[in-house]
Amino acid sequence: MKNLRIVLIGSGNVATHLAKAFTQSGCVIEQIYSRTTQAAKSLAKQYQCSFTTNLIDIYTHADLYVYAIKDDALKDIISSIKPTNGLHIHTAGSLSLTIFEGFQQNYGVWYPFQTFSKKRAVDFTNIPILYEGNTTDNELVLAALAKKISRHSLYCSSEQRKAVHLSGVFACNFTNHLYAIAAEILEESGLSFNILLPLISETAAKVKELSPCEAQTGPAVRYDNQIIEKHEEALANKPNEQEMYRLISKNIFIRSTH
Amino acid sequence: MKNLRIVLIGSGNVATHLAKAFTQSGCVIEQIYSRTTQAAKSLAKQYQCSFTTNLIDIYTHADLYVYAIKDDALKDIISSIKPTNGLHIHTAGSLSLTIFEGFQQNYGVWYPFQTFSKKRAVDFTNIPILYEGNTTDNELVLAALAKKISRHSLYCSSEQRKAVHLSGVFACNFTNHLYAIAAEILEESGLSFNILLPLISETAAKVKELSPCEAQTGPAVRYDNQIIEKHEEALANKPNEQEMYRLISKNIFIRSTH
Repeated sequence: MKNLRIVLIGSGNVATHLAKAFTQSGCVIEQIYSRTTQAAKSLAKQYQCSFTTNLIDIYTHADLYVYAIKDDALKDIISSIKPTNGLHIHTAGSLSLTIFEGFQQNYGVWYPFQTFSKKRAVDFTNIPILYEGNTTDNELVLAALAKKISRHSLYCSSEQRKAVHLSGVFACNFTNHLYAIAAEILEESGLSFNILLPLISETAAKVKELSPCEAQTGPAVRYDNQIIEKHEEALANKPNEQEMYRLISKNIFIRSTH
Repeated sequence: MKNLRIVLIGSGNVATHLAKAFTQSGCVIEQIYSRTTQAAKSLAKQYQCSFTTNLIDIYTHADLYVYAIKDDALKDIISSIKPTNGLHIHTAGSLSLTIFEGFQQNYGVWYPFQTFSKKRAVDFTNIPILYEGNTTDNELVLAALAKKISRHSLYCSSEQRKAVHLSGVFACNFTNHLYAIAAEILEESGLSFNILLPLISETAAKVKELSPCEAQTGPAVRYDNQIIEKHEEALANKPNEQEMYRLISKNIFIRSTH
């Protein structure tokens, strides 16, 4: 595969991480678009490329247009960019391939299934890349690009990708929220969140070897009423968390008996 | 500290892991009690010690009696064991120190804050040990034992320990249940749970550097109604999980705006 010339649309978290990974794989970022001059300029400086805050000025000769912007802005941006011969891809888990329909001829999705924070470096070789193209040729380009960057790439239809995204909400976003509740409970007792870190690591590591069902432990699996009641009492001043406690405990028990 | 002679009461997950850690630290397991002959025998063989299935036959000369049994069995077992001069400790997160009151003179709690599975080796040096004794002398013995085995030990009152245990239910048991739901969603779409593992690892790793609040991402923080509604629709055939989705999303949003 020849080294692709890329226009990057976006300058946030995901765009920043992608710019690095694409460049390392030999691609060349030629232009960066962002709504805000400051963000576009600072990222463009890093990759010695040009930048624009005007959709009209986006280059038309690039091989690949990577849209790494907020989901709710994607539709507007897509409809405002001139048709080109290049391959246009978005990186959103929950949006369909067909969002490009009627605006571009060559398009696809290239979804890195990971949580990105500005402050943390990520190792792309370990991130599953889920790709989909509107033609076989486009899909081959996206597959090749994924293979250059990651050891885990796979074709994934828009329908499947929605399920992947939803599974990530449970396993990442919701899990992190449980960490936040746990942190609060500890801090209210004068204890540091740090004492939870070994347990959090082990819980995550366990499911590399055991299925989550096999790995399930705690009072809810055996429906230990005495402990469950005490915990519900302890959460009396946190009605939302108490309801969450009830609901999840019930669900753990139901699943363990089926 | 002299090497303690231990009677181990229990032969399950926690007992098995503790026997190994105590022995490695120089203690000697002298006897194992279990309700079932098979379990007691097999663990006793490993440590070349005696075993019994009869509470009456428990040695009275040991330095330390370690109760590693199910929470709901603990009270009965404690009330059935003869008083001795040794130090009697339980290893349960949710039970008070005072459960030994009236039955023994020297007692305490020694709670390794981790999730144990028979199939997985654990590194005790990295497990926080939360100890508490009924006297200063007993507490010193438990602190010394904790220090021999782990790099992270701290005094923790029975009241605090209840909070610790509850925080663990959220961060470990409930988190694992979210993994189970995510696995099911993927499998129903013909995808492997394995594609979630890098995301699960990163979510757990992130909170070593960022607080869970800083680390929070996903549609609920920004209350992206379009995505949230689609997800709720996708969960239409799983009413419990749908309710969980609503409740957790709402709670993430409420906390992010406070």
